Amino acid sequence: MAAVRAYLDYNASAPLLGQAREAVVAALDGANPSSVHGEGRAARRIVEEARRRVAALANANPQHVVFTSGATEAAMTLLTPDWRMGKAALRFGRLYVCTADHPCLLGGGRFPAHQVTRIGVDGDGLLRLDELIASLAAHDREQGLALVAVHAANNETGVVQPLEEIASVVRAAGGVLVLDAVQAAGRIPLDMSKPCADYLILSAHKIGGPKGVGAIIAAADLMMPKPLVAGGGQEKGHRGGTENLAGIAGFGAAAAAVLEGLGSVDRVRNMRDRFEAALVELVPDAVIFGHAAPRLANTSFFAIPGLKAETAQIAFDLAGVALSAGSACSSGKVGPSHVLAAMGVDEIQGALRVSIGQETSVQDLELFRSALAGIASRRAGGSRAA
Amino acid sequence: MAAVRAYLDYNASAPLLGQAREAVVAALDGANPSSVHGEGRAARRIVEEARRRVAALANANPQHVVFTSGATEAAMTLLTPDWRMGKAALRFGRLYVCTADHPCLLGGGRFPAHQVTRIGVDGDGLLRLDELIASLAAHDREQGLALVAVHAANNETGVVQPLEEIASVVRAAGGVLVLDAVQAAGRIPLDMSKPCADYLILSAHKIGGPKGVGAIIAAADLMMPKPLVAGGGQEKGHRGGTENLAGIAGFGAAAAAVLEGLGSVDRVRNMRDRFEAALVELVPDAVIFGHAAPRLANTSFFAIPGLKAETAQIAFDLAGVALSAGSACSSGKVGPSHVLAAMGVDEIQGALRVSIGQETSVQDLELFRSALAGIASRRAGGSRAA
Repeated sequence: MAAVRAYLDYNASAPLLGQAREAVVAALDGANPSSVHGEGRAARRIVEEARRRVAALANANPQHVVFTSGATEAAMTLLTPDWRMGKAALRFGRLYVCTADHPCLLGGGRFPAHQVTRIGVDGDGLLRLDELIASLAAHDREQGLALVAVHAANNETGVVQPLEEIASVVRAAGGVLVLDAVQAAGRIPLDMSKPCADYLILSAHKIGGPKGVGAIIAAADLMMPKPLVAGGGQEKGHRGGTENLAGIAGFGAAAAAVLEGLGSVDRVRNMRDRFEAALVELVPDAVIFGHAAPRLANTSFFAIPGLKAETAQIAFDLAGVALSAGSACSSGKVGPSHVLAAMGVDEIQGALRVSIGQETSVQDLELFRSALAGIASRRAGGSRAA
Repeated sequence: MAAVRAYLDYNASAPLLGQAREAVVAALDGANPSSVHGEGRAARRIVEEARRRVAALANANPQHVVFTSGATEAAMTLLTPDWRMGKAALRFGRLYVCTADHPCLLGGGRFPAHQVTRIGVDGDGLLRLDELIASLAAHDREQGLALVAVHAANNETGVVQPLEEIASVVRAAGGVLVLDAVQAAGRIPLDMSKPCADYLILSAHKIGGPKGVGAIIAAADLMMPKPLVAGGGQEKGHRGGTENLAGIAGFGAAAAAVLEGLGSVDRVRNMRDRFEAALVELVPDAVIFGHAAPRLANTSFFAIPGLKAETAQIAFDLAGVALSAGSACSSGKVGPSHVLAAMGVDEIQGALRVSIGQETSVQDLELFRSALAGIASRRAGGSRAA
């Protein structure tokens, strides 16, 4: 690898924050939080303090936070026809997802494929509200309730969905809304005390916490899905298995840190805009996806005409710049982007994603700029960008 | 808490080994192992090195290790009627578990309750082979294959099951065997290259690794369960979600350390025997469960007549000794032991568990002895043990 590196792939995994590192390391020697001896009770306090901090990130009740091993497990847990209200069974008849959702939602979780309806997005990547309204109007209540699962912000484009409108549509139709807030958390405000979503999905490592821990946050815990991981009764019976103590501690610390950082998100936006300015300067014909829609401050998803994204990604890597071609959700897979396909983009060459954070520096920007200059000058068709 | 403490609750969670701590800390800053840039590839190497080390603990093929968030998730994944052989579906008609199994097996995983048969244990806690043979002989193959899930060593008593006999019975009946090796791993040899089990379940934190990571090890990967956590295609599609990089690294390091430590298990056994000698000396009428059966070298499960285990556990804790009354599988729950009930023990007062490791010292033993002396002298009926 190049000696000097710029890590511009926060949406794949954000670097561990210092506060999270400290919390992880401090909790590594902790006992089993379910043990009743002093060591166990000390571990329990760590878990509950983290629960308060994660809840605070979404202005939610800590009692409504269920820790999981990550967002994928959280999605698999929530996306099921089988729910419980207290001890009574409750059934969802159909799941509505968005074509630009992350694969872990798009897969439909525990719903059989024939009970999943996909709602499209427009050319900017925004959920088609008219399509959602029409689908929910046609929902057959006799088969069970309607469950809607949508991403708050897109992992590839950074496009932020019209959250209030979606919540209002789902509420009006008597449905239940699961919001995948994995990329949104810590980047836009989330407030479960307002009509927002019925359930949030969070991931620690996307906000600067460790990998392997996530959470479900419920607006109220009256209704909960049938547990995916049932076991020894942990997490009030909603998720079995000994808690990932150090991971949870790190998650809590990261949540507290990014909540504080929300105030200075303009700094990140300004830096992202400088990356895009460099892009447009060096590649005037570059296409930035979702540009016309509200976007996360940290994300830019773009195509360089005449250059395959996969090739460009490797060239950037060799030049010391870590960025992504599409998303990084499976081992070594670089396929066409289902998000761009959903947006109706005729995506032949793929796209590149720059995703940054509070720690991204001018040095990172300069490394990106010089790498891009070299790459752009070599692209097919010669130096169009000169 | 008392200033000097003896931690005697390894079966609830073993203290993090130094090697595991180093590996966790070294991996904390790693990227997403699915990212294709240099940072991602470095993370991938950490995961694959850990996979080799975890496989080595059971003399298995690293390609057959699937990392999970822990043993409970591993059990929920394996214990399902729906399996796949390549792309073809494969169905299990019935699950056979053992009445002394951990709750995460006993719950039957994804099998409906009416498709689960429980096989009993004898007074020593050993699986009744005759009952298993009879049940498998009566298995209705038209409903699907037979899946047997049994613990290798009991978490409460430490009793080690007749593994070769069980494997041979299941094989003869054409069934598939899942072995919960959570407590056995690193304490007795496991060798998947011999006819042992078709699938093993492991947990990192029981062998001195971090909490929140476990594994399934398959003897062959031809047949695998329908994924419980499906997502971005990680773990060859067997388990979705970004890998718990630091946890997996720590698991690998712990596996390597305990594999090496297997050679000095006699030291642990000698220490456990000294704990039991102290117990019998101070409480001559103490009952040690599973004493007549092969047991793990590190575990002692006993009752002190005239003393409620819950009360004794608190008294030990106050005296600086962390041990368990039953198992620590759910928050603050101290209920009757289902393991003792399965053994036919008329368990009115409960039992205490001392579980130790290579690091347990003579100081720990002395603290236990002095705490026990105080507790025994105060028990109902006066100083029977004097």
